[in-house]
Amino acid sequence: MSLALDTAAQDLLFREAHTANTFTDEPVSDEQMQALYDLIKLAPTAFNQSPLRIVLVRTEEARERLVAHMSDGNKAKTRTAPLVAILAADNEFHEELPQLFPAFPQAKDAFFSERPVRERSAALNASLQAGYFILGVRALGLAAGPMTGFDAAGVQKEFLDDDHTPLMVVNIGKPGAEAYYPRSPRLAYEEVVSVV
Amino acid sequence: MSLALDTAAQDLLFREAHTANTFTDEPVSDEQMQALYDLIKLAPTAFNQSPLRIVLVRTEEARERLVAHMSDGNKAKTRTAPLVAILAADNEFHEELPQLFPAFPQAKDAFFSERPVRERSAALNASLQAGYFILGVRALGLAAGPMTGFDAAGVQKEFLDDDHTPLMVVNIGKPGAEAYYPRSPRLAYEEVVSVV
Repeated sequence: MSLALDTAAQDLLFREAHTANTFTDEPVSDEQMQALYDLIKLAPTAFNQSPLRIVLVRTEEARERLVAHMSDGNKAKTRTAPLVAILAADNEFHEELPQLFPAFPQAKDAFFSERPVRERSAALNASLQAGYFILGVRALGLAAGPMTGFDAAGVQKEFLDDDHTPLMVVNIGKPGAEAYYPRSPRLAYEEVVSVV
Repeated sequence: MSLALDTAAQDLLFREAHTANTFTDEPVSDEQMQALYDLIKLAPTAFNQSPLRIVLVRTEEARERLVAHMSDGNKAKTRTAPLVAILAADNEFHEELPQLFPAFPQAKDAFFSERPVRERSAALNASLQAGYFILGVRALGLAAGPMTGFDAAGVQKEFLDDDHTPLMVVNIGKPGAEAYYPRSPRLAYEEVVSVV
């Protein structure tokens, strides 16, 4: 086969992993989240801008504030997941750029002095990192339940500020009873890939 | 340790992988790209919308047309990489939704009848898939060189259409001589993660 990644890892990250809709009670620790971050922080972003920010919702009170902004179909699972993470893009990531991209510290002013440029770059690169994050949850041996069905303005007001745009909310934990929907079909290679 | 992913896979995908800036001449085959796609297509997107589209630039003539739109600092490596992929978001992904999300075929009209909504959703979810793609290149045992430094309008006009927004260009191949820049520092866990 053409893959260098071993079969167990392929299965863990892709083939046997599914979006979970129910979870067991087993807690997800700060040590696990640190291990996840220490792995995925290494994957690339443009200028190493690393705009992903993560809010872990741990208290009952914060959980209820979040659930209030979730779509109806997402409320029950967001209420019962062992851990819930809000993933957001930091539109002021350029403040850290001189530290993050020492090869060209001028990048902060040369490329990112305008807010709309930063917003587009942060959205793209934080979404890229959200992809790494979802696979990172799976690398922990846990299931992820990423959701975009929520009131973004409400979540931003409640948990973030004007400089941070929420991208998605991710339930995290061990899958519970009847956790999975049947896997939906994927597009064929020829529908996705063209050659010029 | 807290990770279920084995150490060899951690190294291959994250710890020993780096963005490559030079490549060997060894070709990247269609079979390898098919294996990459068959793996990453399984990772999740909202409503399974799967908006990522990929243009593989294989002919010399197409390569030169692409290089003309790359930033000066990206021209040489884009010219010499064994394979170059343009990653784009399909803003008309909703046409495939009834097939892709059979659990709720009404999603096409219920949620995605408006183009600006589709554009935002396609940008987020195709960027998420771009994250899977970059790790998929590494899963092949190859190095990725993702780039956002190019004239997006030019690339769109040359290789895509009004319904497809270019996200990034990715050089793909075996790393060559002096392929890597030193790894830049990453943000500390506490700078990225907050708890409520």
